[in-house]
Amino acid sequence: MRDRYELHYWPSIQGRGEFVRLAFEAAGVDYADVARTQGVPNSGMPALLDWKHDGVLPTPPFAPPVLRHGKRVIAQTAAILMYLGPRLGLVGRGETARLWTHQIQLTIADAVTEAHDTHHPISGALYYEDQQAEARRRAQDFRSNRLPKYLAWFEAILARNKVNDGADRLHLVGGRLSYADLSLFQLVEGCLYAFPHATSAALDDAPLVLRLHDEVARNRRLALYLRSERRIAFNEDGIFRRYPELDR
Amino acid sequence: MRDRYELHYWPSIQGRGEFVRLAFEAAGVDYADVARTQGVPNSGMPALLDWKHDGVLPTPPFAPPVLRHGKRVIAQTAAILMYLGPRLGLVGRGETARLWTHQIQLTIADAVTEAHDTHHPISGALYYEDQQAEARRRAQDFRSNRLPKYLAWFEAILARNKVNDGADRLHLVGGRLSYADLSLFQLVEGCLYAFPHATSAALDDAPLVLRLHDEVARNRRLALYLRSERRIAFNEDGIFRRYPELDR
Repeated sequence: MRDRYELHYWPSIQGRGEFVRLAFEAAGVDYADVARTQGVPNSGMPALLDWKHDGVLPTPPFAPPVLRHGKRVIAQTAAILMYLGPRLGLVGRGETARLWTHQIQLTIADAVTEAHDTHHPISGALYYEDQQAEARRRAQDFRSNRLPKYLAWFEAILARNKVNDGADRLHLVGGRLSYADLSLFQLVEGCLYAFPHATSAALDDAPLVLRLHDEVARNRRLALYLRSERRIAFNEDGIFRRYPELDR
Repeated sequence: MRDRYELHYWPSIQGRGEFVRLAFEAAGVDYADVARTQGVPNSGMPALLDWKHDGVLPTPPFAPPVLRHGKRVIAQTAAILMYLGPRLGLVGRGETARLWTHQIQLTIADAVTEAHDTHHPISGALYYEDQQAEARRRAQDFRSNRLPKYLAWFEAILARNKVNDGADRLHLVGGRLSYADLSLFQLVEGCLYAFPHATSAALDDAPLVLRLHDEVARNRRLALYLRSERRIAFNEDGIFRRYPELDR
C-alpha cells in the first residue's frame, strides 16, 4: 500500500497550506488534511504542533504547512511543492523545467509574504489594529509598486512561454499545467480578494495573468474543489485579508 | 572546456549574493563576480540589468542574485544554491539530504528577509530615514521574538544532527559541510553586525549555533576569503545594517 499524503496546516484558513491543497486537488490525488479531519486520533491542532515539539524528529518544521509522506516530514511550501511536483504530475521532466518552476514558485512565495505583511508590517504577534497606521503605508507601496512589478514579471514569462511553446494553451512553464500555474492562480485570487480595486487595475496591464487565472479556475477538478466545502473561504485570519482601508 | 560560473549581483554589498559567493569560496571553485570585474565587456551593472530587460530570455530573473552557467540563467538564492550544491560538493547525496538542506536554506532566507525588513518595514523604495519609526517597532519584534525563535530552531537541528551523526564535527545536515552551514554562518555574522547586543544575548541560548559559526569562520578556504579583498565589508546599503537605535 502506498503511503497516504498528510497535510498538516491550520484548519480555518487557506494560508500557505492552500498552495499544497490546490496541487492535490488539481492532480486528483487523495490526501488527508489532518487538522480538519474529525474523529482521527492526533488530528486537529495538537497533531500539527507535535511536529514542532517532538524532540527527536530529525527534520523538525519551523512552521506549517508540513507534509508527511511515509517517513518524510517536509516543511516550507515551495519545498513541499518541489517534492510533490513530479509525484503528482505537476511539473515538467528534466532539471531545467523543475528548477525554473521552483524558481517561479519561490518568487510567488515572496509575493505572498509581502501581501501578508501589508496587514502585519510590524509583527505577526500583534493584532492588525495595533499596526494599522503602518499597514496603510505598506499596503500603499504594495499596491503601487510591488504588485504591478510582480504581475509584470509573470506576464513576461507567460508571453515568452507562449511564443516558445507555440500551443494555444497558456502555462508558465512548457505546455502543461504545473504547480506554479496553480500557485499564481491562488496569488491572483488572494489579491483580488484583499485588494479588489488595486488588483483589477493592475491586471489591466497583465492580461495573460488574468487569462491564466481564469483558465485554472475552469480546470475541471479545480472548479469542483473551489465550489466544495473543502475550499475554505477567504477570511480575516488568513494571509489575504480584505481591509477596505488598505485598498485605497 | 567547462563553462565558468558567473554570479551577477550588486558589486558594493554582500547582500543575498554573499550566500552564493560563500559557496564558491568554500568549495574553492573559480567563478566570475561579473559586476565587480573590471575590463570585461558587459561587466558591471549593465550586464546585471540586461537579464531583466532582455526580451527573449525564457527564464528572466525577477531580482538578483543571478547565476549564469552555460545556457542556464538561475535566480533566487535558494534555487541557485540547490543547483550548485551537488556540483560544488556542498550537499549530501540522495533526495532526503538535498531536500532537507534546501528546506533549511529556505528558512534562512525567510530570516534574512525579516532582518532586512527591520530597516525597511514599509518599502524598499523609500530611505530608512523615511520609515525610521516603523523600523524601531519592527526591529524590536525581530530582536525579542523572531531572532530567538530562528536561533532556537537551528540549535535544535544541530543538536539532533549531532546525536544522529555521532561525529565530533558540527553540521546542520549529516557529517559534512553543506551550503546551509555556510548560510547560517552568514546569517549569524550579519545579525552580529546589525544587532550586536541582541544577537550576542540570543546566542547565549544557542551555543551550538555559535560554535558552528566559529568553525565555519575557521574553515581554511573561508578564513582566507574573509580576510581577502573579495569579501565586501558590511555596510549600510546591504541587508544587515548597523543602526544602533535598532539594537536597543
